[in-house]
Amino acid sequence: MTLTLADFTFTCEGTCPHTQARAGYFVTPHGGIPTPCFMPVGTLANVKTLTPAQLKETGAHIILSNTYHLHLQPGEDIIQAAGGLHRFMGWSGPILTDSGGFQVFSLSAIRQINEEGVTFRSPLDGRIIHFTPELSIQIQNALGADVIMAFDECPPYPASPEEVEAAVRRTTQWLKRCVEAHRRSDQALFGIVQGGVYPELRRRAVEEVCRLDLPGYAIGGVSVGEPVEFMHAVVRQTAPLLPADRPRYLMGVGTYAEMRAAVAAGVDLFDCVIPTRYARHGTVISRGKRWNIKNAEHRRSLDPIDPDCPCYTCRHFSRAYLCHLIRAQEILGYTLLSIHNITELMRYTQKMRQAILEGQFHEHWDPWS
Amino acid sequence: MTLTLADFTFTCEGTCPHTQARAGYFVTPHGGIPTPCFMPVGTLANVKTLTPAQLKETGAHIILSNTYHLHLQPGEDIIQAAGGLHRFMGWSGPILTDSGGFQVFSLSAIRQINEEGVTFRSPLDGRIIHFTPELSIQIQNALGADVIMAFDECPPYPASPEEVEAAVRRTTQWLKRCVEAHRRSDQALFGIVQGGVYPELRRRAVEEVCRLDLPGYAIGGVSVGEPVEFMHAVVRQTAPLLPADRPRYLMGVGTYAEMRAAVAAGVDLFDCVIPTRYARHGTVISRGKRWNIKNAEHRRSLDPIDPDCPCYTCRHFSRAYLCHLIRAQEILGYTLLSIHNITELMRYTQKMRQAILEGQFHEHWDPWS
Repeated sequence: MTLTLADFTFTCEGTCPHTQARAGYFVTPHGGIPTPCFMPVGTLANVKTLTPAQLKETGAHIILSNTYHLHLQPGEDIIQAAGGLHRFMGWSGPILTDSGGFQVFSLSAIRQINEEGVTFRSPLDGRIIHFTPELSIQIQNALGADVIMAFDECPPYPASPEEVEAAVRRTTQWLKRCVEAHRRSDQALFGIVQGGVYPELRRRAVEEVCRLDLPGYAIGGVSVGEPVEFMHAVVRQTAPLLPADRPRYLMGVGTYAEMRAAVAAGVDLFDCVIPTRYARHGTVISRGKRWNIKNAEHRRSLDPIDPDCPCYTCRHFSRAYLCHLIRAQEILGYTLLSIHNITELMRYTQKMRQAILEGQFHEHWDPWS
Repeated sequence: MTLTLADFTFTCEGTCPHTQARAGYFVTPHGGIPTPCFMPVGTLANVKTLTPAQLKETGAHIILSNTYHLHLQPGEDIIQAAGGLHRFMGWSGPILTDSGGFQVFSLSAIRQINEEGVTFRSPLDGRIIHFTPELSIQIQNALGADVIMAFDECPPYPASPEEVEAAVRRTTQWLKRCVEAHRRSDQALFGIVQGGVYPELRRRAVEEVCRLDLPGYAIGGVSVGEPVEFMHAVVRQTAPLLPADRPRYLMGVGTYAEMRAAVAAGVDLFDCVIPTRYARHGTVISRGKRWNIKNAEHRRSLDPIDPDCPCYTCRHFSRAYLCHLIRAQEILGYTLLSIHNITELMRYTQKMRQAILEGQFHEHWDPWS
């Protein structure tokens, strides 16, 4: 079917004279997203430990939720009956849902993969599930996110050129079926570029995916265990090949250095579970570094994590208090660190945006130097 | 030492024509408390899963924190250095700390009890701790709560009259040492009445405790496993014996029926862990009943827990969403149910207050009938 893309305009508001970086603005039915932008992950229709009110205060513009997990529980029928994912979870801003591809391949006891799709056992109740491009899109149409992702095959690392080539071929075929299955003009379907660490396969994947003229494109198959230099090389090569007038999304990446390098290559969107996962282990992300609040040096510190951080946690609590909460395994500690860590990554990507607009961004840009 | 009690005025604003109930107002250095009032429990310097901002929104006036737990971690020295418990945990309203007596007797591997105090092993690191009335008050002076509690001996149920009599005698002696040890005029020291289920021992305990002319009195040794009728009988007998011009606090009680009966007997303050503990099991307190949000009937319900409840949870989320979160063991579910459950008990006690002031309160009062 043909979809009107009027609601998903991507405007480039500024480009970097030194790199491929750009500052953009991506319009969706639930609001605009200034890019570069980090997207917090809300796997099970919530960003772990945070209310939507707290999430909004972190500066989050758009969040990601997981089709695979929501299909298993509570099921997309319940979410659809509740008026869609936005209303169900009380988040009125933009949402992106992944396709489930990554989780099907990485989390499931797979029984069979063929051209049709993937058959696996639900880890929750053992029932057999047959995941196909059509089912993924059908679920995502029911969930109602602003951006939905194509169902792809994400090979692990390492994988041989033959294996990766097969995954690229299958991903392209599945993408066509996703486009066919897609039924809602208020959702933008993004294609995903696979190709592993092989430049020629990445190039071919870009060509095949872009032939479908989609409202946005993602670079998948990175951050799957490959050495970080390989990831940088893939992103540096792949991002510039994607159309300049569409948002580019690097999947599963959310560390300072990797986001900066990717922005320099022309990437606009990121997602990663680390700010909330780190929080649950007491790990703080701050000013370009990460460290653990449980360390003895913080036991008596009356300083906030970062005196320059405007988040609720830094405005109200000392390191000593946070150290106590995390050492005592109090849930509030996870909440407060999640608030800080997400705020930090939101600010980092928005600072990059500002630097690009001001012509100050470059390969070694560092807002704290 | 002599303490000025000017900061701890208790004013009776209205009495019930049908029962012993009264509507009061208790002044503390960190704010006034309209009574009857439920106090949420913040054992480890936080009410589990809630930020102070969320807690305030529940309508909480005063919270309780645990001396025993805070002594073990992070230690009162750290909290004192941070400016006291209020500043440490970011709660600017009134706080009450218990004495640690209940926890020492119920949670510890006790090695020795004698007139001097209790010797036990820390469950955290195995070190030997010698808890005395003096140490309890010293810790509570360091924590800096508005109301502090005497260190008492709380016998289990069942206990023989001889055992309970010994506990009453020891509690009285320890209370005198607590009064001697107390060093801060900005903290009100409450005495605790023990006496088990034995009316004569309760009467004697009241007499002995009240001889010390304290700014408030608590009924302890209830809700320790005795049949509920025994608890009601103890409260009905004991509360009216306590001075009418001081607040009366029933320790560890927080269910609808028990609070109503206690208010009818003239009790003003309550604390209980159930609203937050229930939340972690998916149990909802609402309109005089309790039920579990995980039940199948809620899976697809688009209703809030209670359409009349003004809490953040009821204003924003359906039962279906809460059911999903709790079934998926998402922490946010515990937070959202804690917000509702605490709000519910705050509203229940404040509704009793209103009913007393309006002459509508009675033994079988029910705001939902």
